[in-house]
Amino acid sequence: MPKNKQILLDNRPQGEASASNFKLVTTETPPLNEGEVLVRHHYLSLDPYMRGRMNDAKSYAVPQPVGQVMQGGSVGEVVESRHPKYAVGDKVQGMGGWQEYSVVKADTPGALRKLDTTHVPISHYLGAVGMPGVTAFYGLVKIIEPKAGQTVTVSAASGAVGSAFGALAKARGCRAVGIAGGPDKCKYVVEELGFDACIDYKVHKDAASLSKALRDACPDGIDGHFENVGGMVLDAVLLRMNAFGRIALCGMIAGYDGQPIPLSYPQLILTNRLRIQGFIVSEHMEVWPEALTELGTLVGTGKLRPRESVAEGLEAAPEAFLGMLKGRNFGKQVVKLV
Amino acid sequence: MPKNKQILLDNRPQGEASASNFKLVTTETPPLNEGEVLVRHHYLSLDPYMRGRMNDAKSYAVPQPVGQVMQGGSVGEVVESRHPKYAVGDKVQGMGGWQEYSVVKADTPGALRKLDTTHVPISHYLGAVGMPGVTAFYGLVKIIEPKAGQTVTVSAASGAVGSAFGALAKARGCRAVGIAGGPDKCKYVVEELGFDACIDYKVHKDAASLSKALRDACPDGIDGHFENVGGMVLDAVLLRMNAFGRIALCGMIAGYDGQPIPLSYPQLILTNRLRIQGFIVSEHMEVWPEALTELGTLVGTGKLRPRESVAEGLEAAPEAFLGMLKGRNFGKQVVKLV
Repeated sequence: MPKNKQILLDNRPQGEASASNFKLVTTETPPLNEGEVLVRHHYLSLDPYMRGRMNDAKSYAVPQPVGQVMQGGSVGEVVESRHPKYAVGDKVQGMGGWQEYSVVKADTPGALRKLDTTHVPISHYLGAVGMPGVTAFYGLVKIIEPKAGQTVTVSAASGAVGSAFGALAKARGCRAVGIAGGPDKCKYVVEELGFDACIDYKVHKDAASLSKALRDACPDGIDGHFENVGGMVLDAVLLRMNAFGRIALCGMIAGYDGQPIPLSYPQLILTNRLRIQGFIVSEHMEVWPEALTELGTLVGTGKLRPRESVAEGLEAAPEAFLGMLKGRNFGKQVVKLV
Repeated sequence: MPKNKQILLDNRPQGEASASNFKLVTTETPPLNEGEVLVRHHYLSLDPYMRGRMNDAKSYAVPQPVGQVMQGGSVGEVVESRHPKYAVGDKVQGMGGWQEYSVVKADTPGALRKLDTTHVPISHYLGAVGMPGVTAFYGLVKIIEPKAGQTVTVSAASGAVGSAFGALAKARGCRAVGIAGGPDKCKYVVEELGFDACIDYKVHKDAASLSKALRDACPDGIDGHFENVGGMVLDAVLLRMNAFGRIALCGMIAGYDGQPIPLSYPQLILTNRLRIQGFIVSEHMEVWPEALTELGTLVGTGKLRPRESVAEGLEAAPEAFLGMLKGRNFGKQVVKLV
């Protein structure tokens, strides 16, 4: 029975989240029942949506319960099995949470998926070839529905969702313009991810200034936008949207700590006849196979080269998570356990 | 050659519109060229969208030119004709503007339409069986797409668009809840228009208070909303929207004078996976025949009893228009000339 280190949500944040909201404990993995497997986690996923779930607010998901292991995606290896379809050594993906091991009822729909790691490194199944990649796919293909030659933009462009968005948009013949924080990220977005341009939002003090930069980077206006951040970025983008533009609203990280992030000019939705749509990728499981096939090919052929920020060891998870919320990560944030 | 009184836009409003923005002049109607008809206007239409066009701002329509006759819908009678399809005495609808007569090139697409006034009073072709009615139809049927049993809401419920919206929603088996200003309008919305409930926004000092009233009137939440006003009303409605709700954004009269009308909690679009869509009915001419048929039947059979505020004489148009922007009208605002 291996020891299992776990990180629990100890208490809910009052405003900004901090390390004191989490608690590290050590337990023993329980013996397996029939139909269960024991998975040793190689990587844990850290994602911005987790911050929203730490609040006790009405949202699309039940809040993360206090006193329980932080929930989240994981990839790893089967180390013990009482299910005929899973053998020791199988590489698998699941929702194991912030801990070193998880016991999984393997027949629960969506609980466990075998991975092929010959062409795609296992950690990418938490990023470009996983939930964040499918998120980018759904927003671009199902909401923005771009035509070749149209201009699309994305905030947090160097992140897991943004980088997949860029590759998917370029594959469709779009002009892809990113918004990211800092010169290094912007350089990566253009040089490594193949975006046509990237704007450093940190050098702009307000939406009007950022909007001018968008005008230069998007000389034909913006036809579709994918929003991960909200606040000033969304205000600036709205000022540059073309008539009949579409905005996929995926995240509003700028407001996770309770800061007001009003939309300053909703009139623009009317005057430009825009469509704004919020979505949660887990409610659209029908697109996952198609999306994962395209994303796996993009990564396998080197057309999408996702970058990762790797924190080492379970104990590093809270600080890595808090840093990601401040944009200190560079690419997909994961925690490496093995 | 009859004398023709006209009202011009003399100068653009700085902030709130006022009577000094308009100018009354008298001209002579010119002799007709081949293919033209002279229409004597019986009623002019006053609509909120005209306020937006008085500004010199980028919008979906070219701004109303300064020094020219205020543009707008009109119904009247052919008094002279040099076109074989139109005879003196024909009742017609057009975009004659704020004047007593207009000369119309009858072959211009959309310029002139003959009216059947046996079942529908002629002025209603400016309201329930005209542009405002089709606007309600498009927002309800094409954007909100309600199912029977769902709850839909509309602001400015006693107005031309709102009253048509209510009748169309009830015909589809929805719970229809209006928002209007003052007890008389609310009483009319429920007793005459057949809404299930109506909320007087004037007794609520902020969005939180209005939102509580909406909760009581919409015990199952709101599935679809039609917005004519913006500001506090839209904030309050957003707090009560159900998951996967749809919002048709048609007007934001609260911001026409340049007041800030930020959307306070755009996060709700995401957490409730809402779709918000702005639209202009004149860009969807394909729905007009179907919409006008249904609306004409609703009015002809008494299921939709639209109310009108009638100003008498061209000189009364500016004050009636300014009053309408402050909600002083009750139902569709028209100007009666004959």
